[in-house]
Amino acid sequence: MTDTQEGGRRGRRTREAARETGHPHHRHLTNPYRPLEILREDQVEAIHRAALQLLSDTGVRVMLPEAREILGESETRIDGETEIVRFDPELVESCLQAAPSSIEMVSRTGGRNMVLGGTSVSLLPVAGPPNATDLDRGRRAGTLQDFEDFVKLTQSFDVLHSLCPSVEPQDVELSVRHLQMTLSQLQLSDKVPFIYARGRAQVADCMEVIRIGSGDDETSFGETPRCWTVINTNSPRQIDLPMCEGIIDFARTGQVSLITPFTLAGAMAPVSLAGALTQQHAEALAGITLAQLARRGAPVVYGAFTSNVDMRSGAPAFGTPEAFKAAVASGQLARHIGLPWRSSGVSTSNTPDAQGGYETMMNLFGALLGGANMIVHAAGWLESGLSASYEKFILDVEMLQMIAESLQPIDTSPAEIGLDAIAAVSPGGHFFGTEHTLERYRDAFYEPIVFGRSNFEQWVEAGSLDAMQRANTVWKRVLADFEPPALDDAVAAELADYIGRRTMEGGALPRS
Amino acid sequence: MTDTQEGGRRGRRTREAARETGHPHHRHLTNPYRPLEILREDQVEAIHRAALQLLSDTGVRVMLPEAREILGESETRIDGETEIVRFDPELVESCLQAAPSSIEMVSRTGGRNMVLGGTSVSLLPVAGPPNATDLDRGRRAGTLQDFEDFVKLTQSFDVLHSLCPSVEPQDVELSVRHLQMTLSQLQLSDKVPFIYARGRAQVADCMEVIRIGSGDDETSFGETPRCWTVINTNSPRQIDLPMCEGIIDFARTGQVSLITPFTLAGAMAPVSLAGALTQQHAEALAGITLAQLARRGAPVVYGAFTSNVDMRSGAPAFGTPEAFKAAVASGQLARHIGLPWRSSGVSTSNTPDAQGGYETMMNLFGALLGGANMIVHAAGWLESGLSASYEKFILDVEMLQMIAESLQPIDTSPAEIGLDAIAAVSPGGHFFGTEHTLERYRDAFYEPIVFGRSNFEQWVEAGSLDAMQRANTVWKRVLADFEPPALDDAVAAELADYIGRRTMEGGALPRS
Repeated sequence: MTDTQEGGRRGRRTREAARETGHPHHRHLTNPYRPLEILREDQVEAIHRAALQLLSDTGVRVMLPEAREILGESETRIDGETEIVRFDPELVESCLQAAPSSIEMVSRTGGRNMVLGGTSVSLLPVAGPPNATDLDRGRRAGTLQDFEDFVKLTQSFDVLHSLCPSVEPQDVELSVRHLQMTLSQLQLSDKVPFIYARGRAQVADCMEVIRIGSGDDETSFGETPRCWTVINTNSPRQIDLPMCEGIIDFARTGQVSLITPFTLAGAMAPVSLAGALTQQHAEALAGITLAQLARRGAPVVYGAFTSNVDMRSGAPAFGTPEAFKAAVASGQLARHIGLPWRSSGVSTSNTPDAQGGYETMMNLFGALLGGANMIVHAAGWLESGLSASYEKFILDVEMLQMIAESLQPIDTSPAEIGLDAIAAVSPGGHFFGTEHTLERYRDAFYEPIVFGRSNFEQWVEAGSLDAMQRANTVWKRVLADFEPPALDDAVAAELADYIGRRTMEGGALPRS
Repeated sequence: MTDTQEGGRRGRRTREAARETGHPHHRHLTNPYRPLEILREDQVEAIHRAALQLLSDTGVRVMLPEAREILGESETRIDGETEIVRFDPELVESCLQAAPSSIEMVSRTGGRNMVLGGTSVSLLPVAGPPNATDLDRGRRAGTLQDFEDFVKLTQSFDVLHSLCPSVEPQDVELSVRHLQMTLSQLQLSDKVPFIYARGRAQVADCMEVIRIGSGDDETSFGETPRCWTVINTNSPRQIDLPMCEGIIDFARTGQVSLITPFTLAGAMAPVSLAGALTQQHAEALAGITLAQLARRGAPVVYGAFTSNVDMRSGAPAFGTPEAFKAAVASGQLARHIGLPWRSSGVSTSNTPDAQGGYETMMNLFGALLGGANMIVHAAGWLESGLSASYEKFILDVEMLQMIAESLQPIDTSPAEIGLDAIAAVSPGGHFFGTEHTLERYRDAFYEPIVFGRSNFEQWVEAGSLDAMQRANTVWKRVLADFEPPALDDAVAAELADYIGRRTMEGGALPRS
């Protein structure tokens, strides 16, 4: 085989891969559908008022002294012994007014910016699992290779709008893991990176790496939302040390935090959906208030994660009808307070089977049609979040690409209605070879990357592979074809310097 | 083992089964969500006007002379040679005015009536496949046992609102198959039955069987919608002999026909979605007009089935983003003309895997949130409709039950918001044993019949069964526990008489 032949094959394969993964019109999605509503306006108001009352009468435990000091400068009542902070409703309302209703996050190259707010919708992969799993290697503790593979997969599909910590790289030392995770994101992707709020020292490190990677000075970094984190309250009614630090540090640097109460109805929240939503709302408002008091106008996102537990076992359950309704209601609550909001696409299934498909869709549609601005965990989430699945990632991306297509308008111009084209085909005939078809067929329909269209006989002949088995081939091809985006040599050198120095210094452990 | 023990075990098993299948609040579903819209009002109007123009300028081939005679009495222009009928727009509009906007179908016992129209939504199983398939026996030609199994499964779940011809009983002689299919529906179910429009003689037989089974005389039968059929136009622009007869006969007996053009974009309809929708609308309007001219006020449903083909192979594709958008747009067109409308929950997958789950959900949600009044094929459809799957039936029913739950309102009364209950749990505590939880946990959340909630280790220990494998156990249990609803002895005898006589007479062959 000559070099030219090799180049030709490689070229063809790359073009083929680009056709699968490259859909530039998926890079910025706008939701044309009016958000679903399940609550009447007076019900939305009732939950909002109940949450304010809960914050005022009962309060939230805020564990970091510095956070209590910030809050103590305003209209809050603080019990130093229990660390309970009681919030004045007018203070909360004024903080909600201060928070921006829309945020534009800026990617390091400027080519993958992400708007949070309005009718924009951003789709994000799984975040947080300790384990990785695929058909070849099975389920195991996540490694740096897995982490980087998921960064590459996320980078490869236009329909994913930001990076996530899709799996924990457990083979990297805790003290330097945050450095490596941030560096890998910059080296392998130009999408907006994620930082864990695992304490002040780690966050400062990660932000410095991102600042260098983005070419910002300290001033411009503080004025540009470059990265984001998730603040999970320790429901019920508690914000622990690293979460408090995260809220404060992200606010003060102008970076984005998603204040997301972890309200599983029946466990960490009331078994009643209205109760769980009220608690979610109150905890989110507490976090948002702290952020705004740390820096007025800090970019925060209202996070909604309310699902329920299985009442037989106490285990978390995702993709449930209760979670669907909670997502729709959360959207109403978010719009009521005028903030961007974040939801999820998650499932309980232990394998990427039909259950995984149905459950993910249930959550995805509750989020999407509830008008969510960010849908996290929308690709690759498995086992209630304990594993990141390579195959489910691909299956979910197929679904996300289909959803992205279903957000595109229908062209009803006379040429598209095509009365002449219809008249030209005889009754009982077909449109396969008509001019109207030939002019349009290439781009008329979404072409799947893994969902099969063969008939039963062809499918059997090809080995009766189910969707999960076919997805296994796809992620390997995408990884094999991966080419990282450019990173300036001087920037790369500065990154290497910083990380080398911090590693020598021993890095930083998570805040406990 | 004593009789008492046996009875106890049987009783327990029946109660267990009833808890799975019996959800009386699923029997009448109302959609609380405002229907999605993808077309602006002027686009809806443009498609409607284009369809009227197509009917007026180009026309539809109506193959039955009697149908052309009925049409010829009104403002239509008929070409006797080509059988093309051109419809006057005002005639069409007046026929749309005559069609009822809502229909109450009456079941034989009165206990399973089904409203078509308004915000009511009815969910129906797969209709039409030649083959049956399950994990034990594989894929094979459908038999009467399969047909009856699907009637039993449909009867068993409250969330399914009417019977369908879920699989073709190919082991029953063609001339008497219609009699047997209708009899089996009455013997095994009290839900509204389906009749194929395979020609006048068969339809008359089936209606007589249903009339006897319902205890109607001929007058009351003619005034009571007891059964329904699907009229598929032979797209493009053609209505063949049995379809013409079906439209006329169902209209004249006051029974319900779903006028459903078979408009797969790129094959039997234009490749452009606006074109396919225009053709769907025109063909549906032609059928509805014929029905109203056969009997003013005849109960008809606007049927929407627009999907697309795979442009690489020409094969039909279901669960596509184009089908989602077509469903939403079809709902807008149906509401524009003020008729109940029917959509589908279908998929292309050859096995009940993740693809099947995602695709079915895509169609289901397009239909449901587009405000469909009837969703056909919503349980058990496989292989683009070539097989009825026992396992997919159960998986889909799980999904339908979840969807039914997601249509229920959220109670935001003070007791449900539960501020006291929230205050009673310490920060970072849990709600498992609280009074608020104990009072509500039994009915708080939907409990799945086949979707697993066990963790990974438990799941592996139980054999790593995927959802399809678990569904296999469920359908067997439901069939084993099945008990048919009562059928009056005198009615049963009269049915036996009629069917015996008609069988002796040789039955009736389908209209060709």
